[in-house]
Amino acid sequence: MSKEITSRATDYSQWYIDLVRKAGLADYSAVKGCMVIKPYGFAIWENMRDTLDRMFKDTGHVNAYFPLFIPKSFLSREAAHVEGFAKECAVVTHYRLKNDPNGAGVVVDPEAKLEEELIVRPTSETIIWNTYKDWIQSYRDLPLLINQWANVVRWEMRTRLFLRTAEFLWQEGHTAHATAEEAIEETRRMLDVYATFAEEWMALPVVKGVKSANERFAGAEDTYCIEALMQDGKALQAGTSHFLGQNFAKAFDVQFSTKDNTLDYVWATSWGVSTRLMGALVMAHSDDDGLIIPPKLAPHQVVIVPIPKPLPELQEVASRIADELRAVGVRVKIDNDDQSRPGFKFAEYEKLGIPVRLGLGARDLANGTIEVARRDTKEKSQVPVEGLAAYITALLDDIQRSMFERAKAYRDDHITRVDTWEEFVETLDTKGGFISAHWDGTPETEDRIKDETKATIRCIPLDNPAEAGHCIRTGKPSTQRVLFARAY
Amino acid sequence: MSKEITSRATDYSQWYIDLVRKAGLADYSAVKGCMVIKPYGFAIWENMRDTLDRMFKDTGHVNAYFPLFIPKSFLSREAAHVEGFAKECAVVTHYRLKNDPNGAGVVVDPEAKLEEELIVRPTSETIIWNTYKDWIQSYRDLPLLINQWANVVRWEMRTRLFLRTAEFLWQEGHTAHATAEEAIEETRRMLDVYATFAEEWMALPVVKGVKSANERFAGAEDTYCIEALMQDGKALQAGTSHFLGQNFAKAFDVQFSTKDNTLDYVWATSWGVSTRLMGALVMAHSDDDGLIIPPKLAPHQVVIVPIPKPLPELQEVASRIADELRAVGVRVKIDNDDQSRPGFKFAEYEKLGIPVRLGLGARDLANGTIEVARRDTKEKSQVPVEGLAAYITALLDDIQRSMFERAKAYRDDHITRVDTWEEFVETLDTKGGFISAHWDGTPETEDRIKDETKATIRCIPLDNPAEAGHCIRTGKPSTQRVLFARAY
Repeated sequence: MSKEITSRATDYSQWYIDLVRKAGLADYSAVKGCMVIKPYGFAIWENMRDTLDRMFKDTGHVNAYFPLFIPKSFLSREAAHVEGFAKECAVVTHYRLKNDPNGAGVVVDPEAKLEEELIVRPTSETIIWNTYKDWIQSYRDLPLLINQWANVVRWEMRTRLFLRTAEFLWQEGHTAHATAEEAIEETRRMLDVYATFAEEWMALPVVKGVKSANERFAGAEDTYCIEALMQDGKALQAGTSHFLGQNFAKAFDVQFSTKDNTLDYVWATSWGVSTRLMGALVMAHSDDDGLIIPPKLAPHQVVIVPIPKPLPELQEVASRIADELRAVGVRVKIDNDDQSRPGFKFAEYEKLGIPVRLGLGARDLANGTIEVARRDTKEKSQVPVEGLAAYITALLDDIQRSMFERAKAYRDDHITRVDTWEEFVETLDTKGGFISAHWDGTPETEDRIKDETKATIRCIPLDNPAEAGHCIRTGKPSTQRVLFARAY
Repeated sequence: MSKEITSRATDYSQWYIDLVRKAGLADYSAVKGCMVIKPYGFAIWENMRDTLDRMFKDTGHVNAYFPLFIPKSFLSREAAHVEGFAKECAVVTHYRLKNDPNGAGVVVDPEAKLEEELIVRPTSETIIWNTYKDWIQSYRDLPLLINQWANVVRWEMRTRLFLRTAEFLWQEGHTAHATAEEAIEETRRMLDVYATFAEEWMALPVVKGVKSANERFAGAEDTYCIEALMQDGKALQAGTSHFLGQNFAKAFDVQFSTKDNTLDYVWATSWGVSTRLMGALVMAHSDDDGLIIPPKLAPHQVVIVPIPKPLPELQEVASRIADELRAVGVRVKIDNDDQSRPGFKFAEYEKLGIPVRLGLGARDLANGTIEVARRDTKEKSQVPVEGLAAYITALLDDIQRSMFERAKAYRDDHITRVDTWEEFVETLDTKGGFISAHWDGTPETEDRIKDETKATIRCIPLDNPAEAGHCIRTGKPSTQRVLFARAY
């Protein structure tokens, strides 16, 4: 166990923060609530971003870029939207500094006050739909399938690296359609893209569902989501896809002439995932020794460590093996540091979560073997150098698969069906995880449950069977179970 | 000549704006001074960004991400820096809106005033060097070779799409070194990377040089630059690389223990290019019919247009040819629009600057040929379908090369050596371009020349020979010529 990192059993929350900082993923900055994403963390994010970007393009989307600033009046155009975002906005009021007349550095120049304040975008529906007004006249201009990668700001009082920060990086898709059906299809398609990414790349099993009215995006008709479970039994919303109906088209007067030559408002979707996924990745898989990164997203999939140190003859073999692995597409790092001891290095690479470590010792090499250690299970084995590339690619696939299966077994084991309020509270406090329970369908009951237990409805799963029952809190009739959990 | 686009001869400046808007590169937004980068423009920018990113990584750099906001007091720490940027800052003063008590939308909540105002980054030296303080203790932590891709804001009163906007996208490299020599070497290395990118990818010949004191970055010891020439004879600074000395290390107290176990301040560089390059790309190559994009950066390098329209048998051939081209790495678009006529389509693709257009007609196909039209020269030829992929790859190389050569011939023809003030003024007003002339080396004379002619010293070329002469304005002795021009 790493001395730098608090154990999960001692303090899960501190374990997470220690890990994020000590493994070089991110750190707090001099600006309250804003983080610095460090090079190693950013390299993982780049892999996520590039993969998602490819998936968006494969489903017909293109990228664009819209302004960072939103005129204050735009926010008010959609009633629910302003209600949702006004309380956490960074507001630009001036556009110039000047020398302090008292000689103490610079001060805001009162003469450079903006006529209308600008909001640093918390999300871009308003500025984008104001732009779409100029881009959409006819059904021939539809669908419009646009995404942007951007930074956004939501002023948060209580922050946590990656999970909740004032500024974060994300992508936001904003699409425009001629019919409600097509927009809903798009909403579901992007939810599927997110679920595929979470499961196949992050090795993170997710429940696809729809949010209750309380948890809906401010301005949406329906919010779809993917929900994941962390190792402490708390849920984490990993991505959302919104069917916006005609709300923003009406707010910004975006109409189009249909094939029948009538005028109609455009139908909209928006969908996003953020650097929050980095937090999910860490919390779903890592252990007390450090990160465990799924091979598909690891900046380095294999590290080669010459033992006891990088002697010239070992470096030569390391180079050759690295070339062979790179030739089959494996991302390899060679450790040529001759200052530190192997034990120290092993601990470092465990902390960084590199999926496979190759120990290259002179004696093993004489026998034609090499030591292979996998990060997820800590298993070690002696493997013939002959045919190593094929062995490693198969091993990386196996690690990817087994990380998913392990997370899925934990998740499946932590979906508990309960039918009484006592069971509900008891399960929340002892076992955690998702609780599948009946609910009377009212926002009031959801609020009450939240106030009493801090649990919220994470989603109504898409594959939910109809089932008659009674609300665990009020006893009123219910037609289906929903998933409750305490969440990040 | 496209009716939508003003000709260069009529109004060069309007030609540029028409082209940027009508070819779908960018447009003005509802936020003063901020632009929307449209999907086609963004696709070109993505190609630029991905290429540069690869070049940065190949030279040992990694990416990271630092906060959007900079505490106001940070700016004041480096005297020249605050002087350079304070007058064009977007200032965040509040973090919340509230409902207008008079019922008119939302207003800034006066109770949510920040203790210290935050500046939206105009550049990130200050926040980054404040962070480096925690990252650098010893020579073992050096060099630190970090880049970030980010949006920045500099409040501009007079804006022009891509060339000068309040918000723009860029990359900023920020490196830290143990010695001045190493930092200067890095500064020059990145200048070379920029020059290579400009010449080999953008087909844009550049002069590598160093700025005079007047044009130096606020906080730098030396600013290196690449300078390009546009078709109207005005120069454009296409990238800068700064040797920052120990200025920011001293301002933020970043010291390290050397190998000899003494303490020293860290040496710094910073370097950046921005979406301004998009403007340079347009202005260097395009014509009155539209964009001309170099093949290496074109989102689509080839468009296949079935003539007179996409009949099923033509679509099949188009598909097969597209597959063959894609197999050798060519980016191909097939036009399957059955509404518009070929003439209209040709004009559209000329406007978009797609380097090669293939016209696919039934009669040509019967003869085993296809019509190949290149965008840069407008030449058309009948080419055998057999062996087309090899022909096209060679053609794309040829277009890339010949675009560079054409721009270079123009540029070389527009570097004029003058030795008198009369010649200087005359050349500026009639021929334009770079003027190579003697200057007495003082900021006062440079200012005077700028006031009188709007020409500035673009750079002192790196390969400048020593040459005794007399300043064109003051007649005082000079040891070398410098390059003057009017510039964007």
